[in-house]
This record gives sequence, C-alpha cells and structure tokens, in this order.
Amino acid sequence: MLSDNIYAALETVVGAENITASKEDLLCYSYDATNTTFMPDAVVFPVTAVEVSRIVELANREGFSIIPRGAGSGFTGGSLAIAGGVVLSTERMKQTLDIDEENLTATVEPGVITWEFQQDVEAVGLFYPPDPTSKKISTIGGNIAECAGGPRAVKYGVTRDYVLALEVVLPTGEIIKTGTSTMKGVVGYDLTRLMTGSEGTLGIITKATLRLIPKPQSVITMLVSFADIGAAAVAVADIVAARIQPSTLEIIDAFSIKCIEEYDPERLGGAGALLIIEVDGTEESASHEAARVREVCMAVGATGLETATGKQDVKTLWKARRSISPALFKLKPNKINEDVVVPRSKIMELMTGLEALGKSHDLIIACFGHAGDGNIHMNIMYDKTDAAEAARAEEAVNEAFELTLSLGGTISGEHGVGTTKAKYLDMELGPVEIALMRTLKETLDPKGILNPGKIFMDETVAEGSTAPNTNA
Amino acid sequence: MLSDNIYAALETVVGAENITASKEDLLCYSYDATNTTFMPDAVVFPVTAVEVSRIVELANREGFSIIPRGAGSGFTGGSLAIAGGVVLSTERMKQTLDIDEENLTATVEPGVITWEFQQDVEAVGLFYPPDPTSKKISTIGGNIAECAGGPRAVKYGVTRDYVLALEVVLPTGEIIKTGTSTMKGVVGYDLTRLMTGSEGTLGIITKATLRLIPKPQSVITMLVSFADIGAAAVAVADIVAARIQPSTLEIIDAFSIKCIEEYDPERLGGAGALLIIEVDGTEESASHEAARVREVCMAVGATGLETATGKQDVKTLWKARRSISPALFKLKPNKINEDVVVPRSKIMELMTGLEALGKSHDLIIACFGHAGDGNIHMNIMYDKTDAAEAARAEEAVNEAFELTLSLGGTISGEHGVGTTKAKYLDMELGPVEIALMRTLKETLDPKGILNPGKIFMDETVAEGSTAPNTNA
Repeated sequence: MLSDNIYAALETVVGAENITASKEDLLCYSYDATNTTFMPDAVVFPVTAVEVSRIVELANREGFSIIPRGAGSGFTGGSLAIAGGVVLSTERMKQTLDIDEENLTATVEPGVITWEFQQDVEAVGLFYPPDPTSKKISTIGGNIAECAGGPRAVKYGVTRDYVLALEVVLPTGEIIKTGTSTMKGVVGYDLTRLMTGSEGTLGIITKATLRLIPKPQSVITMLVSFADIGAAAVAVADIVAARIQPSTLEIIDAFSIKCIEEYDPERLGGAGALLIIEVDGTEESASHEAARVREVCMAVGATGLETATGKQDVKTLWKARRSISPALFKLKPNKINEDVVVPRSKIMELMTGLEALGKSHDLIIACFGHAGDGNIHMNIMYDKTDAAEAARAEEAVNEAFELTLSLGGTISGEHGVGTTKAKYLDMELGPVEIALMRTLKETLDPKGILNPGKIFMDETVAEGSTAPNTNA
Repeated sequence: MLSDNIYAALETVVGAENITASKEDLLCYSYDATNTTFMPDAVVFPVTAVEVSRIVELANREGFSIIPRGAGSGFTGGSLAIAGGVVLSTERMKQTLDIDEENLTATVEPGVITWEFQQDVEAVGLFYPPDPTSKKISTIGGNIAECAGGPRAVKYGVTRDYVLALEVVLPTGEIIKTGTSTMKGVVGYDLTRLMTGSEGTLGIITKATLRLIPKPQSVITMLVSFADIGAAAVAVADIVAARIQPSTLEIIDAFSIKCIEEYDPERLGGAGALLIIEVDGTEESASHEAARVREVCMAVGATGLETATGKQDVKTLWKARRSISPALFKLKPNKINEDVVVPRSKIMELMTGLEALGKSHDLIIACFGHAGDGNIHMNIMYDKTDAAEAARAEEAVNEAFELTLSLGGTISGEHGVGTTKAKYLDMELGPVEIALMRTLKETLDPKGILNPGKIFMDETVAEGSTAPNTNA
C-alpha cells in the first residue's frame, strides 16, 4: 500500500487528473496478455520526461517501485505489478513529434500506437517495418522496451534495427539522450541498444527517434496449403536456402487452422498446415520473387497455392492470422504461450518435436508464427482446474525449451523474459552472463526501483508472487 | 616496462613463438592509421579464447594494461599503446569456423580479414555488406570493436546490424557468450551491441557469429560529375528525398579529385565534384533504380554521367576511390581525418560550411565519403612543422565539430572516439551520459586493464600521452 503522503507527492508531480488509486481504475492496469492480474497501488500518467524523472526520484527517496507500462499487451508479464508499486503508464505521451521526410526519420513519444504511427508514415510514402501482431494496440515505447518483432522481421529485422536515438529516464531519475538521429553514429557506448529490449528494468523511454525506409511499391500475398506441418516446414527451409527474401513467411498448424477457419472456411479449412508468404519490392522484383516462391512450394508438394487479390482479400487473410492467438481459447480455457526461435533449417525438427511432445504429454500444442526467421509461437493449451493437465503443461514447457536450445535456438525471440520466463533464464544463459546482467541492473538501479522481479528471479519480491494470482 | 617475470608468465600462456618484445617487432605494432606511434612493452598473439582469458587474468593480477589490436587500421588511435602495456594481437585467430548456407550465418575468429571473408561468402552466393574502406587489411574483430561502416551502409547498415552473437573475454578474464545465432533473440540485456563499438574497452572479441544475406543479383555503378560540391550535395539530398535506396552514394570533392585523377585522368579530372552511385537488386530493379538516379542527377545539373562497364572498369573506379585517403598527403604532409555525420538533408550545409571554414582558416579541407548516409570524411591538411598552420588546423577541427553538431550531427560515424576524439567527447555527450558510460566501464573493468585512455580522457594515463609522439 502507498501512503497518503506518497500519493499526495505523486499528485503534485502529475496533477490530480493524472493519477488514480480507485479500485476500478487499478483493475484496468492490473493485467497483460498473460491473463494474470496483479493490482498496483496506484497508476500515474505523466506527460513529460521531467514528470517521469520526478516520479522516479520520488520512488528512490521513498522506496516504492515503478512498473512502466505501454498498452499492457505483453506476453511475459513485463508490465505487471507483481509485488505492488506504482504503474507508470505512458498512454498520455502519445504525440508523433516529427516525421522528417527528407531524412527518413521520425520522432515520437512512447505512448504512440504502433499501427497508427505506421499509417501516418505510409501516408507520406514511408515505411516503419516492425509489426508485432499486437500493433493495433501496442505502443512504440512498449515495442522498444521488449524489442518487438513481427511477421516482417524475416526481411526487415526487429524494433532494435529501427531505433536511432532515445530519451530515457534512468532508474535514478536522470534524463539522458542516447544515440543520434543520423544514420551512423559511434560516439561512446551503445546505450540505445542497451535500453532496447531491457523490459523497463534499466530506464523509462520518454522519446524515440526511429529510422524509416521507403515504402515498398508492391506487395504480393500468397496462401499455400500443405498436407502436414512437416511439408510446410520443409518449404520454409527451402525458401531460405534458395536465397529468397520474403517480407513475411508465416506458418500455421492444424490446431490453429481449426480455430480460425470460420474466417474463410473454403480457403483455410481442411489443410494440414498453411504458409502465408509475402514478397515485396518493385512490381517486377516482387513478381519475380513470387514466382520463385511458388516454384519452391510446388516442389515440396504444396496442395494448394493462391495469391490474395485486392486489399480486402489480404485484409481478411491477415485478420484470420491475427485472430489465432485469442481464438485458441476455443481449444482449452488456458494457454502457455512461448515464442521460441531456432535456426531456420531446424524448423522441421522443432515443429515435429513439439507435435511429438504434445502427444506424449496428452496436450494440445498449437503452433504458428514467424517461421521465416525461425520464430514459432507454441501454445500449450490446458485447463488449469485440471491439476494433472496443468502439471503436464508445465513439464512440456520445460521440455520444449530443452528441445529449442538443443537445436541451437533461444527461448524468446520477441516476447522477452518478464516474469513468465525468469525461472528458465539459466537454461539459456550461463551464470557469468546472468551475473553480468544483474551487475548492470544493480549499477543502473541500485535501489531496485524499476520493474523489480522481471528478467531475473528476484528473491526480494514476495515468494510466489511471480506465479499468477488470477488467471482469466 | 614489463618485468621479466610478467614476460615469462605471458610466454607460459601463449608459448615462446607467440610473444615478442624485440624492438623491431614492437615497432610493427606501434602505429595505426593516425600516423602516430607508441611503443608497447610486448606483443602477444593468443590463438584461443582461453589464452586470451589467461592473459587478461594475469593483467588483473599484475596490473599491466592490454591493448587489443586487429590490423591497426583505425583512424582514432584505438589500438595504440598510448601509455605502454601489452598489445594483444588477434592476427593468429583467423579461422572462418563455419559458413552456414542453410541459415545464412557465419562464425569467424576475430582476426579474419574482412575482404577475404567477403570473398568466401560471395563464392557461395551470400553477402556480408559491411565494407569499411580498409577492408582489404582490417579484421572482423576490429570492425566489430569500432562498429565499422563503409560505402554500402547507406542501404545495408553498419557492422552492428550483422553481428548476431559474440564470444567475449571480459576485462576481468571471464569468457562470456552474448546473443544467439538465430535471427531473433531477446533473452536478457543486449550485451552483443554493448560490446559492438566499445573500442576494445569492455571486452576482447574472440569469436563472432554474423548474419549474411543473399548476394544481390546485379549491381550498377555510375560516376556522375558536377560543377561544384554544392550541386553534388543537392543531388545527394534529392536522391534520398526521392526515396531511392542506392547501395552506395559516395561524394568526392575537388581537392580529393585532384589527388586521384592520375587513375583515370579523362574521367576524373576537371570535375568540381563527383558522385559514385551504385544501385543493386534483381536486374530489373537495379536498372529501374539506375534510371531514377540518372533522372535526379540530370535535374540538378550533372555535367557528366556514365555507367561503369565491366568488372575491370568498376575496379579501377573503386581503386581510385580507395586511394583518396593516402593520396591526400600529396597536398600536405599531415592530415587530421574526421568522419562527421549529419542528417542527409544537411549535406549541402556541411560541405559548403567546411569549404568556408577552409578558406577562413587558410587550410585545405578535402572532403569525400559516404554522403548517402550523411557521413563525410573531412581531411584537414597541414604541415606540422608550421606551428601556425597546425594551430589553425586544431581550431578548424573544433569549428567543424561545432558546425556538425549544430546541424544535428555526430562527430563520428564509424571511426570511433579512441584517443583523437576523446577530448571532444563532451561537445556531443552531456555529463550524465558520459558519467553513465564511465560507470559501465568501471563496473566491467574495475582495474582499468583494457585499452586505457580510449573514448574517455584519462587522467591516470601520463600527461600528454594522448597527443601523438610521432607523426609520419
């Protein structure tokens, strides 16, 4: 609980209209996409970096923790107040400050919605590639904090590759500027990328300068069906090995297809696995690449291949793809969603390995995702009221991570570690690496103010609090 | 001076054939491209990460400093033993361990020569874009330590964008692994990019996994002449504003042309300024882009435009371009070479500003470089035996940096800070940012073992030692 004095001090910083501790409001900031909820003690909505800085200074003086929050769309608990504290929402810092058409850069506040920003830059012929599936609600600040990816990463890279410069409030309250808005810059250490993907534990992003590129002239979207996931996985590996650079290369397994086939039953239903493939470029180069993709897919025995025609058609297809994650709840009331990554040539082994894992543990493991960069969203579906099934699900996570790492992969491609993967951190990282990261955290945040209990298992956070206390 | 005991201990680690302290040998490791020399106390040539680690541990115990060195081709003194110490050369760690054609990655030791590596990957249809002009001698390890760029950065980005994973020996001797060899990965803090560009002050790179891309099918090289630098600068801005993505967009001013015109007098001579422009992609898309480039250049009054035909022709052109830096000594015996960057729309203001600066200080300032990303190599030519001219040169650097920063730029795009820019660091970075970087350095390297006196002005390094003691 926050004392009245601290609440009053926070109110002085942001104004009465930008702070709340009412139960109804707190509920709205208690969840994220993990379907767990933790009530914060208060929520503040600063509108300037100076306000953020003063809040952080106050936290250092008074000893309360701050949980930075974008849209709360994260999958690993990064924005959850797992041990109380003050949620610092960036939703009222949502101005696009500049779109520099001459230099192909833009400067935004952290609360800008990614999709809205993309619309704005595309209106002037520019392009901001990072496209997490949550983009219609997630924010640029949250995307940077998690180093979000998305379908287009296979060609264009992830959020990290588009962040040129940041304004950041450090855990001790100082406001710093990192990087430069120029295309190159190597003066001093790369604080920009140290902050990117640090999950709100090393600083609060209050402004970002992003790199834009010219919008591709032409995009061709294809839907390819296969008899089973093995054949689709082989197609993915073959496309990469053929040196084709699709702008999107998504895989969808049979469980996932079943959940979304209502969007377009004729097209989506019945297939054992699907690939959604996009190629882009000039009209000529996109056609050329599309023809090569078709050739590779037919060679590995695609059972159907069609090109989406017209904007509406493409939209329907992507609506179906984006619906997979929520639609999976048709299969079971609870899910564990992990975004493992393997080298692209190992997709086949991963997919068939996960299929076998589902069978041996009597679980539905629905897989879909960004196969083109080896990043698969595996969803273990279970019913938490069935204790035996829940235990099997937990075991399956462990074995899936072991499989992933044995294939040379990583346990998170774009969702981050947060709380849900903190206990698995040492499966991937060695003790020296973890110690170094903890040292960096302690050096920047000696009082442990910012987002405690994230990334690293934190003994100072109350026992059991990293486990969900509510599961919708 | 190194004690006999320490020398013997080093010899035990690397073997007698991998250490030297003979004067002749030390001389070979005393220089870099700044044309200054500082004699180290010894040079070691480890061949494994474990050897590197043991050397670093010894340094911590005995209190000597280590200066990591690739090819010594840096322009800012990063590999110079400015206060003695042991140079750790990576030249005997030069194996390409793996080129993974299925996953488009490669794993190399740090001493691999960049150009040789590029030849190897191109032989199998792959492409490693970073191409510092020093690439025929410089090493991947040095490129990563400095975050090298090059002409192709305008389209493909810099070294940072191609480093997936590293093996690094920390300043305290531990061997760590950073990143993953997969296309995505967000587990823990981004140590890979913290190391990239840290100029050998935070760790010694002993292995690197790099991202490759498919080799472009077709490259078209054009040479465009202009009456003066202003017209060429306008063409650069117009190409960027037209949303064209050349793979190379180099500018060469009249002073630089004069120094290299012997390579191809008919073509290079007489022009007021030149652009070398490359576009790449499929044959169709490259032709399409080349046509657009021609259109923009003619619209701003190019006085000549020709397309290089045949490999030999392209080679001659690039040989001329690469010869600029050494050829400038025809103008004056000494040079100060700075690689400033401005937003691309400000190239015109930078180039004309530098021209004016040269006039007002009665100095030759020869400019060329990667105009496409705003990165200009400005070379202040002077004679150090002329004290007045040397003083004017020093003043001009200061004013050039002020101009650059006033245009929203940075004082280094790809050369780093090293010793030559350390005293200007606070022109670009604020005290809080510098303090944070220093804290990171002290946290990772509490005894100041690795590359002391680089990036930051170091009071513990002997007075005056950051000034060149020899200037060839």
